[in-house]
Amino acid sequence: MIGLTNYAGVMESLMNSAEEKQPSSPLTNSWAKKQESSKSQKPNGVGGFVLVHAGAGYHSESKAKEYKHVCKRACQRAVDQLKAGALAVEAVAAALVELEDSPFTNAGMGSNLNLSGEIECDASIMDGKSLHFGAVGALSGIRNPVMVANRLLSEAQKGKLSAGRIPPCFLVGRGAHDWAVSHGIPPCPSDKMATKFSLSAYKRNKRKMELAEKMDTGHNQTKKRRQSSENGNGSGCLDTVGAVVVDLEGNVAAAVSSGGLAMKHPGRVGQAAHYGCGCWAENACHMNSYSTAVSTSGSPILASEDRVLGGVIVLRCCRCVEAQPSQNFQGILVEFLWSHTTESMCVGYMSAQDSKAKVRFELANQLN
Amino acid sequence: MIGLTNYAGVMESLMNSAEEKQPSSPLTNSWAKKQESSKSQKPNGVGGFVLVHAGAGYHSESKAKEYKHVCKRACQRAVDQLKAGALAVEAVAAALVELEDSPFTNAGMGSNLNLSGEIECDASIMDGKSLHFGAVGALSGIRNPVMVANRLLSEAQKGKLSAGRIPPCFLVGRGAHDWAVSHGIPPCPSDKMATKFSLSAYKRNKRKMELAEKMDTGHNQTKKRRQSSENGNGSGCLDTVGAVVVDLEGNVAAAVSSGGLAMKHPGRVGQAAHYGCGCWAENACHMNSYSTAVSTSGSPILASEDRVLGGVIVLRCCRCVEAQPSQNFQGILVEFLWSHTTESMCVGYMSAQDSKAKVRFELANQLN
Repeated sequence: MIGLTNYAGVMESLMNSAEEKQPSSPLTNSWAKKQESSKSQKPNGVGGFVLVHAGAGYHSESKAKEYKHVCKRACQRAVDQLKAGALAVEAVAAALVELEDSPFTNAGMGSNLNLSGEIECDASIMDGKSLHFGAVGALSGIRNPVMVANRLLSEAQKGKLSAGRIPPCFLVGRGAHDWAVSHGIPPCPSDKMATKFSLSAYKRNKRKMELAEKMDTGHNQTKKRRQSSENGNGSGCLDTVGAVVVDLEGNVAAAVSSGGLAMKHPGRVGQAAHYGCGCWAENACHMNSYSTAVSTSGSPILASEDRVLGGVIVLRCCRCVEAQPSQNFQGILVEFLWSHTTESMCVGYMSAQDSKAKVRFELANQLN
Repeated sequence: MIGLTNYAGVMESLMNSAEEKQPSSPLTNSWAKKQESSKSQKPNGVGGFVLVHAGAGYHSESKAKEYKHVCKRACQRAVDQLKAGALAVEAVAAALVELEDSPFTNAGMGSNLNLSGEIECDASIMDGKSLHFGAVGALSGIRNPVMVANRLLSEAQKGKLSAGRIPPCFLVGRGAHDWAVSHGIPPCPSDKMATKFSLSAYKRNKRKMELAEKMDTGHNQTKKRRQSSENGNGSGCLDTVGAVVVDLEGNVAAAVSSGGLAMKHPGRVGQAAHYGCGCWAENACHMNSYSTAVSTSGSPILASEDRVLGGVIVLRCCRCVEAQPSQNFQGILVEFLWSHTTESMCVGYMSAQDSKAKVRFELANQLN
């Protein structure tokens, strides 16, 4: 086994970036070559690294403390798993559970309510070692959607079902719920997943919608749509959460979870559940010496006249023989970045050798 | 407007390929340079081209006639639309409706039944001009799932909903059904969508499953799964249908529709509904002089120890000034191919200037 002893933070942003103790500056859209302090520590047989985010969106600054706390806890959960010998995919799922359990994030507990006042969640997870993928969409009544996605992934890794049936990797709606319960994941009453905040946001949005529709009576349909394109869910809560992990063997994994857009139509599935959209993880292979894990937030697949609002966290790593030749040690060099075009984003990161996670809560107006 | 006056068929297969009046031969996995007769006709102001397939799978040879017929009808439907001045996206939807309406294809009417004996369909459509995408997953009780996907696409093109809400592009399950009905698409009782054939296949599969599970009692789980990996749905019916179209203005569109795997878990969504998996269409732009439309069949996103079973139809075209310089005419050169690793595939193609479609029903054992 190879300890993760060397990591360097690389940060870059389409709109703004932050780096500890350094003034931020907008960078070009490419891997920035500016590296954070490259720490060299003696190998201790325990390695791994996690990068999480609690959403790219429009967060209230008053809740910055909460977002930082949940990122810290999510990093700690993943690192605890890594220290216990878990693979990247298990550690990334553990981080996501913590992010989902926070009533302040738009994932799991406290998710946005849809048009019918219900919570329907999307989540997906990918294992860079096997390239297996698991996802759920429009899932109601399960506290931790990522656990269902992870269970789909692990069940698929066991091979075919009876009579040669191919196990599912993407389940939606009632079918996803029933599959989860039949696999031992307990159901959670929907009213227990809504929070005071999500319920009052729903009521506010509902009033806004009714008012907009009332005002538009008599106008033509196209005009109505164009005119009322402010302050709706489009700019409200895009705060999908996500995490990327590399374990001590150098395997990578990525996961993403979202309550989706507020006031969305029931049955709407967002990019968090889409294969190749919400997350991606791929171990190094003979064709590519880098392992890569990515988790996205926002709506990259929505083509519209507006600019795309979103965020991304990326981790890549490679075995680095030259890193510490004097110690005759094969290290893993980990590079990571986050980037967002939204007003705010909160991220946290931690290596298995850190005593606590580092967190950043960014507001665009502090950086421009 | 530019008439489509020049088309050349290019065919290539990973496993086998067929070309009229020429012996087939396995080709390498690249654009074959062997071109079918390149027809040059005088421009008549009416152009366009369609390529459809009725599934890459394991079709009974006794039904070859039916598959050929439905491919012919689907081509004719698309060409009728093109001649009436419809855009590619409308023509491709029309072709898909014909393919879905056939009780012999695994899409719409006569789709595979899931574990609960219900029909749940996936479909998606993409417009190469706007790059808009519409999809439905695990949709029950609607005769033509592609019509819902197409309606989602066209509604999204109208812009935002009241109070700035982003319109959905992917709906699943009950929510998708209710959205369709509220947009004037009539519901269809599930029992009207099942056929004698799909019901008897369900009963046969159910017995097979029960027998396999009975036989495996006492064996360990992993062993059970590996041993029973023959003759199940994995090798049964992968016959997703699809079409690709270029209209007389040179816009491309692609669509795909599937009843999914037989005996799948309720709520399972397959690649036909996945963005970037089931279909893709992209008009030429300043970065790329080719317009491309693709529709896939099979399970490309399933990583397993087995080889990937599937098929694909591809169309690409470019404006070709040199095509007929003597006539001072800007033609569109259309190239197309189909390819499959399954035992059989049935395709049809037709230009707006043809009096009828050409069809091919391929069986692997006839070609090797």
